[in-house]
Amino acid sequence: MSDIIQPRVLKGFRDSLPSNEIRRKHIQSVLEHTFELYGFVPIDTPILEYTEVLLGKGGGDTDKQIYRFTDNGGRDIAMRFDLTVPFARFMAGHASELYLPFKRYHIAKVFRGENTQRGRYREFIQCDFDIVGVDSAAADFEILLLKARCFDHLEVPDVRFHVAHRGVFNRFLNKLGAADRSVEIMRAVDKRSKIGDEEVRNLLVELVGSTAADELLAYIRPEATNAATLTTISRLAGGGDEDTERLGTVLEWSDKLGLSDRVVLDPSITRGLDYYTGIVYESFFPQLPEIGSVCSGGRYNDLASLYTKQHIPGVGSSIGLDRLMAALEEIDKLPPARAGVDILVLCMEERLIGRYHEIAEYLRGAGMRAEVYPEAKKLSAQFSYAEKRDIPIGIICGSIEAESGVMNIKNLETRESDEQLSLEEAAAKARAILQRKSHQNYGA
Amino acid sequence: MSDIIQPRVLKGFRDSLPSNEIRRKHIQSVLEHTFELYGFVPIDTPILEYTEVLLGKGGGDTDKQIYRFTDNGGRDIAMRFDLTVPFARFMAGHASELYLPFKRYHIAKVFRGENTQRGRYREFIQCDFDIVGVDSAAADFEILLLKARCFDHLEVPDVRFHVAHRGVFNRFLNKLGAADRSVEIMRAVDKRSKIGDEEVRNLLVELVGSTAADELLAYIRPEATNAATLTTISRLAGGGDEDTERLGTVLEWSDKLGLSDRVVLDPSITRGLDYYTGIVYESFFPQLPEIGSVCSGGRYNDLASLYTKQHIPGVGSSIGLDRLMAALEEIDKLPPARAGVDILVLCMEERLIGRYHEIAEYLRGAGMRAEVYPEAKKLSAQFSYAEKRDIPIGIICGSIEAESGVMNIKNLETRESDEQLSLEEAAAKARAILQRKSHQNYGA
Repeated sequence: MSDIIQPRVLKGFRDSLPSNEIRRKHIQSVLEHTFELYGFVPIDTPILEYTEVLLGKGGGDTDKQIYRFTDNGGRDIAMRFDLTVPFARFMAGHASELYLPFKRYHIAKVFRGENTQRGRYREFIQCDFDIVGVDSAAADFEILLLKARCFDHLEVPDVRFHVAHRGVFNRFLNKLGAADRSVEIMRAVDKRSKIGDEEVRNLLVELVGSTAADELLAYIRPEATNAATLTTISRLAGGGDEDTERLGTVLEWSDKLGLSDRVVLDPSITRGLDYYTGIVYESFFPQLPEIGSVCSGGRYNDLASLYTKQHIPGVGSSIGLDRLMAALEEIDKLPPARAGVDILVLCMEERLIGRYHEIAEYLRGAGMRAEVYPEAKKLSAQFSYAEKRDIPIGIICGSIEAESGVMNIKNLETRESDEQLSLEEAAAKARAILQRKSHQNYGA
Repeated sequence: MSDIIQPRVLKGFRDSLPSNEIRRKHIQSVLEHTFELYGFVPIDTPILEYTEVLLGKGGGDTDKQIYRFTDNGGRDIAMRFDLTVPFARFMAGHASELYLPFKRYHIAKVFRGENTQRGRYREFIQCDFDIVGVDSAAADFEILLLKARCFDHLEVPDVRFHVAHRGVFNRFLNKLGAADRSVEIMRAVDKRSKIGDEEVRNLLVELVGSTAADELLAYIRPEATNAATLTTISRLAGGGDEDTERLGTVLEWSDKLGLSDRVVLDPSITRGLDYYTGIVYESFFPQLPEIGSVCSGGRYNDLASLYTKQHIPGVGSSIGLDRLMAALEEIDKLPPARAGVDILVLCMEERLIGRYHEIAEYLRGAGMRAEVYPEAKKLSAQFSYAEKRDIPIGIICGSIEAESGVMNIKNLETRESDEQLSLEEAAAKARAILQRKSHQNYGA
């Protein structure tokens, strides 16, 4: 009997219902608008690529997390697992068509067959923005400024931007004689915000002994001011150099542009990944330490060396859109999910639907969102539909009103009605109701 | 020596460079805005699904075109090949969370391992919009009206919407005694716009003999007016009924809403696919007959019967975004691909970059798109960058200007300069240049 297929989705995958999708689109458009104000341009790349292109010859550690298969043409292909590798391939492939410096953003889905236990998804949206083709303090600073403006425009100005410098850290590790353990050291240091100084020290003692561990702790602990921290890490790394100078410049410009309250020089930020060579960034909601960084990145010395001999330095950052939305929800800063329809033209008689669409078109022409109920159901069902969709205004036009070219308008929240209005009067009334409503919302 | 991996993309896949991606985003946002004016809400679904969910138990004809594989958990999964099947699964899975009628749009990538010879792509973007949960002339008409408004808002009002009715056609085939050959007949009839009446007749004669072939031709050939065509097909199908009456209502409302010049009752439209049961739509650019339909769809009796016993009728349409963009390019109606940056603040000295960002931030606050050149390269290189990116205004501020808080502004198109302006004066001047430019563009 049961020929019905279960309408299930894969583990780690989700549908986006309108309430979520409207919010996601709003957040994405705020970010896109911000990027464009700063001259960043959008690109896109295929979701499927040659596995060799994504993983390099022979593949790598990420293998197990990758959706990889053989297509009908016998090609070894895979779904992209981030937007950085495709960007590198993109820059190598289109060098002759592009200008440098090139500033791009890319907001798109990526796929990882990860363990889903910790609330991770296997399909998620990343938002990457990078400046490539230039190695300067100006570009390092611009990424920081742009991050701050993204969160300003999302109306969450109280995000903290933690920065550090991998070049200075590496010099310090060399001086400490611990460069050969740098991967394990960074892994331990990275946990500081989660497990605290003492636990980090225990890990470090095991790795490098207690003297070096204490020196490492002295390096990664921020001082009371960014200037003091900069002095400390410069000293511990063996004195000032180009890297510390650039870090100082970025901090100075942050002050000048009014970001000093939000930018924290935090030498415990290392970002692990091998390819970072200069400044590194993470971004935290002070109210939500447990959620981790919502926007991370840094400077890399050579983006596309796998695919081209051309040397392309760059700096950039990435926002995990799903994590960001979860964080915004947590602090009650998600944009409203109103379906966004202003007016429902109710259907009193089906033969009048042409007239109803005329009314709705007039209202749309005046910039309002209107819909016509598409069949002559009982009025109670139509009002209940309006309520479920949160539509604030109803227009009611039976055959008598239609004949004399008038209609009634009803404020569905206060239940007040105005009767026998012309189309122009009804539109003016609708606009007045919407304006009052939007003032109330701002007041709330 | 050569460790370099070729930065190639898979056959049938493409990168989207900024010039294309800016246009695509613009077109997408015009469509989204239009959908929202009509009360449609966005959804999204995963790109990967259980193969069983996408193909039904046992799979189907589409098998060979599908990207299908086994994931690391041993699941038989596939990439979506359209947005209709996932929508059906979505409606069945979320029935209790949604209201009816439900009007959704969905703009997203789909994947088909098709033969790429005829300029087809294996990854492409579809834009679907549907009204489900209602079976009425109002919904049939609303889809038609919405299509017209989408093209109005894309500034290509001269698209022709061809409609027909599968119910009437099936009744006619029954009367003709040819219902058992309906699939082959529809396939032949569908070719009318490409191969002409005579060739279609030859195909039909082979299928059903010359008498029936002539009657079929009489049925599918539009008369001089929609009303006359409606009379003819009603007669040939055995008289008027609910279906012809509904078609008449849709045509009447099209007249009333000013669409009569663009809506063509064209009985040769059948849309082949089995699941259409009522009105069917195709949309053509009269200048581009060879490009085929850019927006097609129709009414189906039951969307989600594979996944639920709930009966969900619906009507909708789908725009192939890639084909639409190709058509718009052909008729020179693609939106401009300007990178959209208004002002470049040139970098005279790197130590002044903080000041340059202050200037740029002021201009952005005034709604202009500004960027700071991120290193002190030769001015000729910076001007050449501005030219490649089509940036119309440059701001030049050396150390002498910075000290007295002034700057020079240069119209990069006319090469005129204004010197020693305050920030406020420079912003006003920039706005004046941009306004003049935008007037010129409208005039052109």
